[in-house]
Amino acid sequence: MATKNKYGLLTDFYQITMAYGYWKLGMDRQKAVFHSFYRRLPFKGGFSVFCGLDPFIEFTENFGFTEDDLNYLAGLKGNDNLPLFEEGFLSFLEAIKLTCDIDAVKEGSLVFPYEPLVRITGPLIQCQLLETPLLNFTNFQTLIATKAARVCAAAKGDPVLEFGLRRAHGRDGALSASRAAYIGGCAATSNVLAGKTFGIPVKGTIAHSWVMAFEEELEAFKAYASVLPNNSILLVDTYSTLDGVRKSIKVGKELKAKGYEFGGIRIDSGDLSNLAKQARYILDENGFKDAKIVASNDLDEYQIEKLKKDRVPIDIWGVGTRLVTAYDQPAYDGVYKLSAIQKKDGAWKRVIKLSEQPEKTTIPGVQQVRRYSHQGKNIADVIYDEKKGLKSSTMFLLSEELKEKTVSEGADHSDLLVPIVREGKIVGSLSSPTDIRERVKKELSSFDPEILSLKQPYNYPVGLEKSLYKKRVELIERLKKKQAH
Amino acid sequence: MATKNKYGLLTDFYQITMAYGYWKLGMDRQKAVFHSFYRRLPFKGGFSVFCGLDPFIEFTENFGFTEDDLNYLAGLKGNDNLPLFEEGFLSFLEAIKLTCDIDAVKEGSLVFPYEPLVRITGPLIQCQLLETPLLNFTNFQTLIATKAARVCAAAKGDPVLEFGLRRAHGRDGALSASRAAYIGGCAATSNVLAGKTFGIPVKGTIAHSWVMAFEEELEAFKAYASVLPNNSILLVDTYSTLDGVRKSIKVGKELKAKGYEFGGIRIDSGDLSNLAKQARYILDENGFKDAKIVASNDLDEYQIEKLKKDRVPIDIWGVGTRLVTAYDQPAYDGVYKLSAIQKKDGAWKRVIKLSEQPEKTTIPGVQQVRRYSHQGKNIADVIYDEKKGLKSSTMFLLSEELKEKTVSEGADHSDLLVPIVREGKIVGSLSSPTDIRERVKKELSSFDPEILSLKQPYNYPVGLEKSLYKKRVELIERLKKKQAH
Repeated sequence: MATKNKYGLLTDFYQITMAYGYWKLGMDRQKAVFHSFYRRLPFKGGFSVFCGLDPFIEFTENFGFTEDDLNYLAGLKGNDNLPLFEEGFLSFLEAIKLTCDIDAVKEGSLVFPYEPLVRITGPLIQCQLLETPLLNFTNFQTLIATKAARVCAAAKGDPVLEFGLRRAHGRDGALSASRAAYIGGCAATSNVLAGKTFGIPVKGTIAHSWVMAFEEELEAFKAYASVLPNNSILLVDTYSTLDGVRKSIKVGKELKAKGYEFGGIRIDSGDLSNLAKQARYILDENGFKDAKIVASNDLDEYQIEKLKKDRVPIDIWGVGTRLVTAYDQPAYDGVYKLSAIQKKDGAWKRVIKLSEQPEKTTIPGVQQVRRYSHQGKNIADVIYDEKKGLKSSTMFLLSEELKEKTVSEGADHSDLLVPIVREGKIVGSLSSPTDIRERVKKELSSFDPEILSLKQPYNYPVGLEKSLYKKRVELIERLKKKQAH
Repeated sequence: MATKNKYGLLTDFYQITMAYGYWKLGMDRQKAVFHSFYRRLPFKGGFSVFCGLDPFIEFTENFGFTEDDLNYLAGLKGNDNLPLFEEGFLSFLEAIKLTCDIDAVKEGSLVFPYEPLVRITGPLIQCQLLETPLLNFTNFQTLIATKAARVCAAAKGDPVLEFGLRRAHGRDGALSASRAAYIGGCAATSNVLAGKTFGIPVKGTIAHSWVMAFEEELEAFKAYASVLPNNSILLVDTYSTLDGVRKSIKVGKELKAKGYEFGGIRIDSGDLSNLAKQARYILDENGFKDAKIVASNDLDEYQIEKLKKDRVPIDIWGVGTRLVTAYDQPAYDGVYKLSAIQKKDGAWKRVIKLSEQPEKTTIPGVQQVRRYSHQGKNIADVIYDEKKGLKSSTMFLLSEELKEKTVSEGADHSDLLVPIVREGKIVGSLSSPTDIRERVKKELSSFDPEILSLKQPYNYPVGLEKSLYKKRVELIERLKKKQAH
């Protein structure tokens, strides 16, 4: 038997109190359907790259509570200073084994607001206990994969290196970010553990401290090149950038004389535009047309876009802080909502949550997304109730105040949610980060390229299928009538 | 022998290439001094709460490289497709044991720009290998502890609950954030694993899905109160907030009749100001003056300050996303720089890094900070070279373009950096998060209270002691002269 993972308690406390409630009330076998989805496009962009699913699925594999976990829960007390939970409940948790079904969009797919991303069907308690880890894993990685895809789009095919470990949010904030950034399109990471764990190429040469540890900058460059002649990108801005470039040339020539390739230089401060142009001139003049210029210093997609527009001769982009913290929007608004519940007679009841903020009113049912395409380009997504089937070619656009639209009958189509877990067991195999990265590339090329614009991107149409739309209107009206009484 | 931790490779690749370089060049025993510090006050505030030190120190305890790690490194190749590292180096890493000294400001102290926070003295290679994990641990936790202190200051003593797990940056992004938020002043967390790991109180009751899982909202409330009568905060905004409040009153009365205390209500959406005022009226009218109103929904220190100013009767503040991601500034700019290196003859050489961005020029020497106080209030900090001693009461303010200032001779004072590790062994004992939290409280009360202002806070004076200031000027001039040649 597999060991339980140590993260059973990585959940919000209300999941445990609710689980206790359902157990006490004999509702622990009652089945429900929950979906995760998001509401707003991140970074005012045109898409999200769905990411973090496979780590979540791995997490569910050995889900459970250890003896330690149960002892901790046994010690928790209420406002009357008596234990919150009965022993029977703790035994129930001790024996818990996931039996739910999970359907999800493939990791690396492009997804849009309100589309179901992960659908969990199973006992209420299990659906609840999985909510917080699901959101923790997928919210963050989707945010970073999306950011990385934007940064790489701005770099127009130049390699982007992820350098964020020192500013990332803790150990795993860094590891997950490196994984997601690679999936989103980065070429390599500086994080060696991420390289080892996920098979991501690792890059790096020297820091300013290397240069400072020697009497002279030139001596420092020569020393490094003597030791690692086959990994020779020299950091030139410890004292004066262009002076550093000139010294790197001397080392480059020595490397060349010994039959090695001079890798190039890295600039980490100052006016990158001006410095890179002058450095390129010096390198070219000295016959190092193939030597690369790596630039870093609080870069993001907006600055890279500007530097590319100005034809600044930077070949490789080192992006750290602003990528791994998603600096301009450091949280993804993914949520997870109940949409159907099985009654005691076995019938499924569709439910919604109303809100004084109308965009927070949820979608009912057992949701699926059908993606329509024409000549290899995706043209629209339709959310429908899988149990009811897709009955109408009319949909109501969620992106445009529920305006009516008809999907052309002859379009190709496929459903995005596929079975991942059945009765607690993984069906099929998980993909490697490299495979998922390939999927992202393919996905990005199958949409209108304007979707990648950093400003006012193309607005991809996503709608509710007519009968699901009607069901939602009916439920809203019924609930409002109920409140009025 | 203790097992090596699995995080030896949680570092930037250039630390490994530099380590290789130093090893190859026979510089592996050469000693150096590095300091971590930060440059800009986060959130345009008046202070930082230093946090994350103890987890870093624990990390150093079993520092090392596993067989797996070494196999991974052995497989890495250069641009000539040959292995980057010699076998001898991998054996060196296999046998590595930390022998360095670490001095640091106590976790939970208030710290200011350019002050040395952690000083590592030891073999160059060890100093480098520890850089990235040190910054990863302390940058993030300092950011969050500082944010939490600001949020708690805005709440003026009301309990603040940290609810951020689902939006935090991965597993550890969440766990570290819960620890730091608690240290910064939060009263509890929703993250059960953080509660168990760090001894933080955990809080939570029900989600919207609980209410939706029953036919009627009132039935849902009654069911919950029957199960956990001693933990009865009811979430009232699933359908219509004030309607929910009225239903909660019925349940409150039943609880009271059974001898339980009615905890109160939680509002998670809508116009919090208006809804809380009306809810308070309804609760009071029904004799529940002690029932609490908990509010959440993308809160931060700015919104809490406004709601407090408007005398909105919210008792407990649930703060999630904007706290654990430090939403308005999700990265802390802490860095780690070489400031002295031992030459072959044993003499120490002070070094600096120049920069075309003048604020990036570093401070040389073996740095220490002396904090002066008068009548229990701190009045100024002076950075000086510990090896040279504090010779002058004149300092040059880093905060005000190096303006001269004299520290009053009679003031009380103490040095902030204290020994934590000697020759790789922890000296003294680490503090619990609860003790560190107490230190933060005490620290906050020992500064001018204006330091806590969210806008234009009091600018605490920090200066360079005269002889250190002169040494820095001398080094800058010498380097500039060298570049000119």
